[in-house]
This record gives sequence, structure tokens and C-alpha cells, in this order.
Amino acid sequence: MPDYPTSIGTSDADSITLLGHDVAGELMGQVSFGELAFWLTTLRRPAPGELAVFEAVLVALADHGFTPSAIAARLTLTGAPESLQGALAAGLLGGGSRYLGVTEDCGRFLAEALASHSGPLPADEAGWDVLAASAVTAQRAAGKFVPGLGHPIHKNGDPRTPALYRIAGEAGLVGPHLELFAAVGRVHPAIIGRTLPLNGAGVCGAALADLGFPVDLLRGFALLARTAGLLGHLAEELRTPVGQAIYRDTDEAVRYISPRPDGAVG
Amino acid sequence: MPDYPTSIGTSDADSITLLGHDVAGELMGQVSFGELAFWLTTLRRPAPGELAVFEAVLVALADHGFTPSAIAARLTLTGAPESLQGALAAGLLGGGSRYLGVTEDCGRFLAEALASHSGPLPADEAGWDVLAASAVTAQRAAGKFVPGLGHPIHKNGDPRTPALYRIAGEAGLVGPHLELFAAVGRVHPAIIGRTLPLNGAGVCGAALADLGFPVDLLRGFALLARTAGLLGHLAEELRTPVGQAIYRDTDEAVRYISPRPDGAVG
Amino acid sequence: MPDYPTSIGTSDADSITLLGHDVAGELMGQVSFGELAFWLTTLRRPAPGELAVFEAVLVALADHGFTPSAIAARLTLTGAPESLQGALAAGLLGGGSRYLGVTEDCGRFLAEALASHSGPLPADEAGWDVLAASAVTAQRAAGKFVPGLGHPIHKNGDPRTPALYRIAGEAGLVGPHLELFAAVGRVHPAIIGRTLPLNGAGVCGAALADLGFPVDLLRGFALLARTAGLLGHLAEELRTPVGQAIYRDTDEAVRYISPRPDGAVG
Amino acid sequence: MPDYPTSIGTSDADSITLLGHDVAGELMGQVSFGELAFWLTTLRRPAPGELAVFEAVLVALADHGFTPSAIAARLTLTGAPESLQGALAAGLLGGGSRYLGVTEDCGRFLAEALASHSGPLPADEAGWDVLAASAVTAQRAAGKFVPGLGHPIHKNGDPRTPALYRIAGEAGLVGPHLELFAAVGRVHPAIIGRTLPLNGAGVCGAALADLGFPVDLLRGFALLARTAGLLGHLAEELRTPVGQAIYRDTDEAVRYISPRPDGAVG
Repeated sequence: MPDYPTSIGTSDADSITLLGHDVAGELMGQVSFGELAFWLTTLRRPAPGELAVFEAVLVALADHGFTPSAIAARLTLTGAPESLQGALAAGLLGGGSRYLGVTEDCGRFLAEALASHSGPLPADEAGWDVLAASAVTAQRAAGKFVPGLGHPIHKNGDPRTPALYRIAGEAGLVGPHLELFAAVGRVHPAIIGRTLPLNGAGVCGAALADLGFPVDLLRGFALLARTAGLLGHLAEELRTPVGQAIYRDTDEAVRYISPRPDGAVG
Repeated sequence: MPDYPTSIGTSDADSITLLGHDVAGELMGQVSFGELAFWLTTLRRPAPGELAVFEAVLVALADHGFTPSAIAARLTLTGAPESLQGALAAGLLGGGSRYLGVTEDCGRFLAEALASHSGPLPADEAGWDVLAASAVTAQRAAGKFVPGLGHPIHKNGDPRTPALYRIAGEAGLVGPHLELFAAVGRVHPAIIGRTLPLNGAGVCGAALADLGFPVDLLRGFALLARTAGLLGHLAEELRTPVGQAIYRDTDEAVRYISPRPDGAVG
Repeated sequence: MPDYPTSIGTSDADSITLLGHDVAGELMGQVSFGELAFWLTTLRRPAPGELAVFEAVLVALADHGFTPSAIAARLTLTGAPESLQGALAAGLLGGGSRYLGVTEDCGRFLAEALASHSGPLPADEAGWDVLAASAVTAQRAAGKFVPGLGHPIHKNGDPRTPALYRIAGEAGLVGPHLELFAAVGRVHPAIIGRTLPLNGAGVCGAALADLGFPVDLLRGFALLARTAGLLGHLAEELRTPVGQAIYRDTDEAVRYISPRPDGAVG
Repeated sequence: MPDYPTSIGTSDADSITLLGHDVAGELMGQVSFGELAFWLTTLRRPAPGELAVFEAVLVALADHGFTPSAIAARLTLTGAPESLQGALAAGLLGGGSRYLGVTEDCGRFLAEALASHSGPLPADEAGWDVLAASAVTAQRAAGKFVPGLGHPIHKNGDPRTPALYRIAGEAGLVGPHLELFAAVGRVHPAIIGRTLPLNGAGVCGAALADLGFPVDLLRGFALLARTAGLLGHLAEELRTPVGQAIYRDTDEAVRYISPRPDGAVG
């Protein structure tokens, strides 16, 4: 006998229940969309400070211009204008390890460093720096990048990073992941030999991990945030389309090289 | 020389601009995620009353249980657990004409009825009823359903409908689409011979159209709302997976009928 | 008690059955992939002539260079290189009404013209021309384009069209849809005032309809064909990536226009 | 100045070129769809024996009944019947690491074992067994499964495995990956303590790797094969829909557990 438990929602002839509450009577008009998104993924209502950090993260990650993801969404709408859901889905599909993955990778890097630490958490900056130096050194020894460090455009500092620390600080929510991430910012120059900014995607991962979200879900919030940004691009594409021009310009820049019979090129 | 105009976002070494504002200094911590989504699609900041209606719509549409869309998202995560974006995209792809289309269809039906009306808009209920009767009669004469009427579960009334009218009323935002939709609710029994409830997807379409969104974009807000609901399902699937069980139970209920050589079955 | 009938496949501990045949013993090594695709969708094995036409259609539709669809697939791989399925899906999502829809639209236009014709089918070219003139005239009167006519690049004739007529002719499979489509080519100049080529997507729709496929499924074969083309693009992107360069060049051509507070631009 | 090299296709007013050949004159009617797919991904035309193995792999992987992927495609069509491309894309998105990944994982496991082997390849079964024992032992020591071993249904042997060995043998194409995979089948019982069958997804990965495809692309062929199977499911869903019933039956089996205020369940 099939039996699939869920705690998200249910409905009967007279009511729609979401998270144990009546949608019409207790949620609509009482709860913001951001608050509902937090609640849906954790099954608990966020405290006001938690919500402030969470909404700031969603705002920080909503858009970053003509990314591969936004361009793909616009091109897909060009080919299939009848299917807004297809254009949105195509845009989200580009939100993978290389493009939106930093949020998740940084949360995981910090969470694993904290999990591998035995004993009580550090009580001061010096203690966090020791832990951060150990984590950065181990990551480098494994031949891996330290997630959350560096940005192709904001070489002198990503402005979202101090903004989110300020908001989390006002909410009293600078937890161990954000503490450790700040320490990574202090100690990495001596270890890797140059100074890189703490980027916005990384600090968002740290803040979400401090809010208690599991690391496997962090990419999901970047995707939710990006859904709003992609809708902005698609709304603009409906008003002033550029997808056709991007296609034409790209196609015109293609140079054809006939392959040889053995498959070799050039 | 390619040139793609946009008013969404841009960035340089020191700042990230969204909608003409500095993300870090002017938006993070100041603007809710719902507010940003409204702003991204219209390029203007909503007034508080507009935002209240908009967020209520997103809350109303966020989830409706184990829909085809939610089941598809869970099954996709079962097959490709490394790709949260793929599971989310698969869920959104089911948000098409039959499942999430009512919001768009209802907004379009109302907008077209209003557009075809010449002269000033009605000043009282009796006037709206005349317009509604004309639109419902024409739709029926064309052999089409009236969008926004009826619900498979909430046969006595969808509780989201009065809730959204109340919220829009408090904000002073019951515009012509919502007026006309209410009139459809009053006049349809005499025309089609039975009384059907005004459903939640339909009233959301009317409210979004009153907020000034183009009808081609209405499905997009249902998709944005549903993204939060799907994330809730995927978070639950990570905690207590049921996708494998749904697969197994569905597969066990399959009955194989060997086709004949001409392709006929049974 | 759930019960889902199917005639595609089933399996038990010792065998895998597809279309009523043992996959390992009767299909692998005996049936080409194209043949299997025909069989899977019709439940009957194609005759050799049918297969020749079908495979020619798939070859004709497999690729058309850096289309919006191919560019979107490459950009998606750039952002999510771990998910080949996501890049492929993003590419297919652009295969909608505007881009791959011609095959389906043309098949439907021809099928509806044939369905609306009473009495026996024409016995000679003159008879087909009468039917075609009637269909083209009605389509124009309804303010619609005639699907399958015209091509942005191949203004003097799409080379795939005569090739497919030749292959269908050799197989004895020029049925009513292909006959009517050829007549459309003959009669349209006098009706619409200029001469347009019969395009390859259109002739493929006519040929597939003559093979007995339902029109609702025609887009599916264009998508199957395009899957091979997209795999070619993704294989090339893995060898010599250009997605990052397309992103960079597109992003550099963006011109930011700050919106005014009321949402107006410019 | 943008410049994107490609060797797949190009076109001008009079011709369409694919892989350096004229589509209409040299490919349509001359090349099967399977052959074109091989050619598009390698840029070289396969020899007849290579094509026989390749098409057998595509046939072997095309369908496996009501998989999570096939169910998701059917449910997506139920919600968005206007978008065949969306239903197909949703189905492909479930073709990830857990479901279609075995083909890729097995190819990679074998390729890495061969790459780590110095000196000439083994000349006899005993030599292959030594290499296989070393690879299986190392995989187990790393706490990982050996890809390609075991099947939830075909516990006594997957019938596709001997069929593909036979076809590859007739083509003279049992290369090092297939040799090593066969040796894995011989040596693993002594190492892991029980006898598992060599499964069909695994042998397909070995055969594709012997054909020279890069391992990063192997999943792509499983996806291409599955596209035909999914089209079969969608064609059947158009004829005799079961998606609505799967939704209803699944939804009826859901048991709602109201969450507690702290997010705990049960």
C-alpha cells in the first residue's frame, strides 16, 4: 500500500493547508514570499532577523547581468515564445557547479572545516584564524581552489560581502560559518601569496549555512533568487527583444573549418 | 557593431547596479525578495499596497501538494541527485497551459473583454454584470471554457479567492480586472446553467493584471511562486525521499500489452 | 487499483522486452537506431522504404549551425559542465513553435486541408492544384502565413526539398501530404504575388505525415534529430570551448540604460 | 573581433554543409541517423563494424519501461501538453548520475584503470585478470562500488551483455575496455565475495569507450538513445494517457503530517 509522507501541503473541499496553516486565513497577507520560501524548506517560520538575512541573500543573488544563464533564457524564448516555462527552465539549467555553485561550494567548505574541528569553537579572532589557516592550507594541499575567494570583475572587493556582514551583524546572526569565512579573508594572503576578495556568492553560502540550511540545498536558494532575475530578463525580452540579434551576431562570428576524413580539424 | 540595451543590471570593478540602484548599498536589507521580483519585471518599485497584493498572490500560488509538477521534480532528483537545477527545471516544465495556465488564461480573458469594451468603464455592479454577461456569453458561443471558473477539489468555493479580494480591497487595488472577474462570478450561473466557484488561480490572474503586468508574463509569476514550492518538495525529498517509492509503485502498476505486428494494441 | 497499460517495454529477471520483442536476441544487431525510433512511436516496424524516408528526414533536420538552440546548449554547458543532460535539455527547450515548429505546422496545415476535402483525392496535378489554391487562399484570408514556404537563407530553394522528394519517390511514398505540398509550391505565386521556396522543415513535415505519424507528434522527430546535432555541438564544446567567449562578447555588447522611477526607459 | 570555430555545419544561399559534406546531395539517403550521430560527435564517418556496435548500444539503452525519467516526461506532458519539447527535456533531466550515469561511470573506471597501467596491454585472459583484480581491489579499498556490476532485476545476468559482446566480436571491436570489463566479471567474485552480473549499461560504456569516444561524452549517447524511448512514451501518452491517473493515484497515497512550530515532524 503506497504511503508518501509529506509536511508541505494538503487540501480538502474547504481549505488549503500549507505547513500546517490555512493558506487563505493565516498565510496570505501575513507572510512575505521570502518568508514562505524559508518556511517551505525548513518547515519552521523564520525569526525576523533570520528573515532579514535570508531576503538580503536572495536580493544579492538575483541577477548579475547578461550571464550565460540569462542569455540562454533569452535565446530559448526566441525559439519557443509560447513556453515561458521552457525559457525559465533553460536559464536555470545553466546554474550549475561553475556558475552558481560557489554558494554551495563555499558553504560546504566551511561546514566541513567546522565538522572536522574537535572541541569548542574559537572564542576570538585569533582562534578563528588558526582554524581558517588549517582549512585553507589543507584545501591548497589537495590541489583545490578555496571557494568564495576572488571575483573576475570585483578585484578590489565585492560590495555585497560587507553589506551582508552588516545585515547579519545587526540581526545577531554572524555564526560560525560567517566567522570562519571572515578569518579565511584574513589569513589567506600569507598562505597563497596574494590577496583575493571574499566574493558575494561565497558570503551568501556562509550566511545560508549559518541559518541552518543543509549544504545540499544551498544551490537551490541561488536558483530561487535567479528565477526572479531571469523573469526580469524575460519580461525585458518581451518588451525589447535582443535574442534574435544575439543569435545573428553570434552566428555571423562563426568560422567553419571543414573536418578531414579522419576527424582531424585544421 | 552589436548593441543589446538592458535596464536590469550592470557592474563594474567597484559596484553592482540593479535597476539603477546600488545592490549592496540601496537594495540589500532595504527591499524584500518579493519587492525585488516586482521591480525586476516592471522596472519600477511597487507601492506598499501593490506589494501586499503581489506577495499575497505569490503565497497563494506557491504550492498545491503532490501535483504532476512536484512529482516530476522529485522523480528527477531521484535519477540525477547531483543536479538540483535539473530537478527544479523539470518541475517548472510541467507548469504549462493545463496546470499553471489558468492564471494567464484568466488574465487574458478579462483583459480582452475590457479591451473590446468601448466607452467608460462601468460605474456600478449592474454595469459590470452587463459586461461580464457579454464576455461569458461570447466565450461560450466560441465553444470555450470561461477561465477561472470551477475547481476539482474546492467545489463550494476556493478559499484563496475571498482572501485576495479582501487584501486587494484593503490596498485600494480592486481594479477593472478584479471587478469584472467578480461580475463573472455573479452572472455565470444564469448563462451556463450551474454555479461554479471563482478559483484561486483565476483571481490571481485578475489581480496581477490589475497590477499592470502584461498578460504574456502572468504565467511567469505562477512559475516564480512555484519555484519556492518545488524547493520545499526537493528539501523534503533530501530529508525523507519518496521518489524511489513512487517509481516502484508506479512501475508495479504497469500492465504490458504486446503490440501486434501492425501496431494495433489489445 | 492503479493500472497503467503500455505496449513499449517490460522486463523480468531473465529478459528485456521492447515492442513485444526480446531486446538482446531480436533487436540489438538487427534493427538500426532510426528504425527503433520509428517502431517505438508507431508500435509497428517500418517497411524498408518507410525507413529510408524517415532516416532521410532525421538527417535533414539534425543540425543547422549556431542556432539559438545550439548556442543555448553551449552556454548551459559553460555554466554547468557536470550536467550534460542539462545542456541537452536547454538546447531542446528552444525547439518550439518559432524554431522547430515549421515541421509540425506544415504537417498540420496539409492534414487539415486534406481532412476538409470531401470526395476522392485528386488524380492529377491539376486536381492537386485546385485543392492547394483553396487551402492557400483560406490561410491567407485568415491572416496567417502558409507554413513551409520561404527561408531566410535559401531564398532560391532549399536543397533538402528536392532531395526528400527524390527519396520518397524512389520508395513509392509520395502520399497526399507531399502531393499537396508540391501543389502549394506551384500555385502560391499567383495567389500571394511572389515566389517562395518550399523549405526543408516543411517538406519533412509533409513526409512524416505521409508516413502516418499524428501531427501532434511531428515536432518530436525534429527534436530527436536535433538531439544528435546538439550532441555534436556539445562534443565540440568539450574539445574546443567557445561558450565562454560567446558569453564575454555578448556581455561586452550590452549597453545599460538606467530606468526612471516610473519604470520608463530612455 | 569574435571568432567561434566549428566543424559541424554551415550554410549559404544554395547549400547546407554538414561535416564537410552537402546534406542534400551526400548525406540524405546515404547515411543512417545512427551513422550521422556517430559522425557528428567524432567528426569522422564510422566504419561498418563501428556503426554496428554503436547502433546496438543505442538500441540497448533506448528504453527500460516506466523509469523515473519516463514517468516525469508523461507527467510533464499532462501539465503542459502544448510543449512536447518540455516533456522531452524533463525526461532527459532525470538521466543523471544515478540513473543513466552507469554507462559513463563504467567507461571512466575502465579508462582510468587502463591509463594507470604502464607497459603493453595484456596478451591473454590471465593478464587481463591481473589488471582487473588490481582495479577492483583499488576501487573497493576506496570505498566505492565497481560500476557496471549488478542489476536490481536481472540478478542472473543482463541479456544485453552477451549480445553486445557477440556483436562487437563479429565486428572485431572487442578492445581493451571490453576485455577489461569481461575480466572484471571473472575476478570480482573472489574479491568482493559474491557474484554479480555485468550489466547492460556498463557494457555499453565499455563498448563506447572502445569506439574512441571520450568518457565525458558517454552519458550523451545514453541520453540520445533515451530520447527515442521517451518519444515512444510520449506518443503512447498522446494515444492512451496515463499521466493524469499516475498523478491521482500518487496524490491519493500522500499522508500529510503537520509540522511542529520548530520544524520537527511526527
